[in-house]
Amino acid sequence: MVNVAVLGYGVVGSGAVELLTGTGEGQTKKADDLVELKYILDIRDFSESPFASCFVKDFSVIENDPEIDIVVEAIGGAGVALEFTERALKAGKSVVTSNKEVVAKHGSRLLQMAKENNAIYLFEASVGGGIPVLRPLSECMAANEILEICGILNGTTNYIFSRMIDAGLSFEDALKEAQEKGFAEQDPTADVEGFDACRKICILASIAFGFHVLPEQVKTTGISNVTLEDVAYAEATAHKIKLLGRAIHNQDGTICAYVEPHFVKNENPLSSVEGVFNAVTIKGTATGDVMFYGQGAGKLPTASAVVADVIAIARQMERSAYRLWSEPRLEGTVSVDTLSNVWYVRLLEDTLDNAEKIETANENFAENAYFTLPMTRPEVDAQLEGKKVLSIIRVLD
Amino acid sequence: MVNVAVLGYGVVGSGAVELLTGTGEGQTKKADDLVELKYILDIRDFSESPFASCFVKDFSVIENDPEIDIVVEAIGGAGVALEFTERALKAGKSVVTSNKEVVAKHGSRLLQMAKENNAIYLFEASVGGGIPVLRPLSECMAANEILEICGILNGTTNYIFSRMIDAGLSFEDALKEAQEKGFAEQDPTADVEGFDACRKICILASIAFGFHVLPEQVKTTGISNVTLEDVAYAEATAHKIKLLGRAIHNQDGTICAYVEPHFVKNENPLSSVEGVFNAVTIKGTATGDVMFYGQGAGKLPTASAVVADVIAIARQMERSAYRLWSEPRLEGTVSVDTLSNVWYVRLLEDTLDNAEKIETANENFAENAYFTLPMTRPEVDAQLEGKKVLSIIRVLD
Repeated sequence: MVNVAVLGYGVVGSGAVELLTGTGEGQTKKADDLVELKYILDIRDFSESPFASCFVKDFSVIENDPEIDIVVEAIGGAGVALEFTERALKAGKSVVTSNKEVVAKHGSRLLQMAKENNAIYLFEASVGGGIPVLRPLSECMAANEILEICGILNGTTNYIFSRMIDAGLSFEDALKEAQEKGFAEQDPTADVEGFDACRKICILASIAFGFHVLPEQVKTTGISNVTLEDVAYAEATAHKIKLLGRAIHNQDGTICAYVEPHFVKNENPLSSVEGVFNAVTIKGTATGDVMFYGQGAGKLPTASAVVADVIAIARQMERSAYRLWSEPRLEGTVSVDTLSNVWYVRLLEDTLDNAEKIETANENFAENAYFTLPMTRPEVDAQLEGKKVLSIIRVLD
Repeated sequence: MVNVAVLGYGVVGSGAVELLTGTGEGQTKKADDLVELKYILDIRDFSESPFASCFVKDFSVIENDPEIDIVVEAIGGAGVALEFTERALKAGKSVVTSNKEVVAKHGSRLLQMAKENNAIYLFEASVGGGIPVLRPLSECMAANEILEICGILNGTTNYIFSRMIDAGLSFEDALKEAQEKGFAEQDPTADVEGFDACRKICILASIAFGFHVLPEQVKTTGISNVTLEDVAYAEATAHKIKLLGRAIHNQDGTICAYVEPHFVKNENPLSSVEGVFNAVTIKGTATGDVMFYGQGAGKLPTASAVVADVIAIARQMERSAYRLWSEPRLEGTVSVDTLSNVWYVRLLEDTLDNAEKIETANENFAENAYFTLPMTRPEVDAQLEGKKVLSIIRVLD
């Protein structure tokens, strides 16, 4: 059994507690049987919480408990978060965090401190929230030299651009809407001025290129100067405007890392990353471009990455990287004929009732095409019995 | 030092040898210093090869050499590839492969055999080529229950659809073109009939859901019946046609896995996966949808995933999952002002020479917008000196 202490019971900390204990919405079991929650550190009162017995207010209780193997730092900022991280590592406890500020500023020192104390320091959640990116970059692309990293690393600014493009809102109105919807902080400086993206590209570049790239080495330009006119010119030339964090490996071995708004061609997969989603493209010498896409923030996505790091440390001594598959179970699968969805149907001459007819510009009057109501394949086959069917294709929900 | 034997010197095997030895194009060093190539097994004559001294024709040399820790199986098919995998595992050697046929049919048994012999069996390259997906699914999403996997798992069929959509080629003509370009085999059955995608969704489902899903449990429909008329109707309704492999986790615990052409809405990120690229979307209870995108086949991408598995086994005893970052190096980065690219420039009243003017439908005659020639930021600033600049935005190459 591996015992865990969670520092800070805010958004990320409470999400991690839910996943560790199997009490999250829609969750049917603990994230991992190996891992046990022992403490939650928070200075506030949570005596009504179902986890009341876990709460402590004094970090030294955790620091001095030899049963604690892993500390989840979910306090945020670079004050006590940094102090408790250092004390935990010096006590030989592994530390997992989503704290990009601490990692971007102090990562190399903390990784070294972990090594000296035979502990592990992991921070998958610090970049891209729940999107797996640091571990794939570090492990799955280990046979590559990394040529470039380019990413949409901040959901708030991406949401603002999406709303400027789709709804014609000005920067100020889009920011206001983002704040109302909870996608932007009341003080949006760290997002809008690119500081958040800057910390993330620092962490990505450091893992990719092997030396710690500090925030002050990354020229950072935010999005507040981008206007609706710029958005219109981008659209007229088949581009989208995106705030990108980039780190380029030059042939002479130097790195060029920066954060800045860019015109991105519509055929670049990054251009179709909309709203609060994030995506990171990594170019390796052997793989070419690979892209990782998903929700870059939020309670459970971020907590998912934190808890995955916890589980990775707990499983460290196991040998297989994949969960063992049990024997095949023929009764474990059901036929795709049980799956109900809309169908695209094309008929020669015949027509179909209770279905949406598809009108096209160049209509061939001998044919009719439809989207059906949601139904299974046997059901649509029954409706089509006796008709001259040219095509049936499933429509993805 | 960890010694490796590569079985089969075809496309994937020779790619793995290049990466392991640091002799690939554009490669400046060995993939990992821990790992040493000792043998290459191939029945053909490679006495002129720079690796001639590594070649052996008899597998028992490898099987009986206690110095060999890891065997890369790059033979293909389910004949001797399976036999040598079993013999290697029984000899306590870890095995890495890209062989989706063997894994989809025999994965649970081989994982069990590896465990019993204190060895590891890994196969990241068997799904998605160089795209990291099995390890992120298994490790980074370990705190999630997986609800659905949905992917474009075969580049050949995706290329055929892309050419039908973009160039209006018929299925037969698009297939012929794919064969001429080397994107399709002379016997394209495994790709076109969906068998290749079927094997991959079996492997993904088995890792996600914890029991071995066999190919015969996955109803598989290929793409040969999809016509240009279907493509036109898809376009008219803001869809693209894609061959998807899907595995859905039903609420009663059963799995529904199948391969079939689908209409996919244009706003679904899978719809913009074009040509020979692959992508896999995984929906987790905590992360929501995450997507992995990249080249799903090819010599070096596939070899990259194979060698990453080799390195992962070799590093197993090391404790940190991330490469240690060395100290910051202020001289290690260069300013973004050294970076040359096209710029989008918008001017009030003024005009710009040697630049491409952007025409928009609703032109404001007081303004002019341009794409410049490629240049650095200081260069574009010099050109704009004295002009009334409204916007300058970098254009991503």
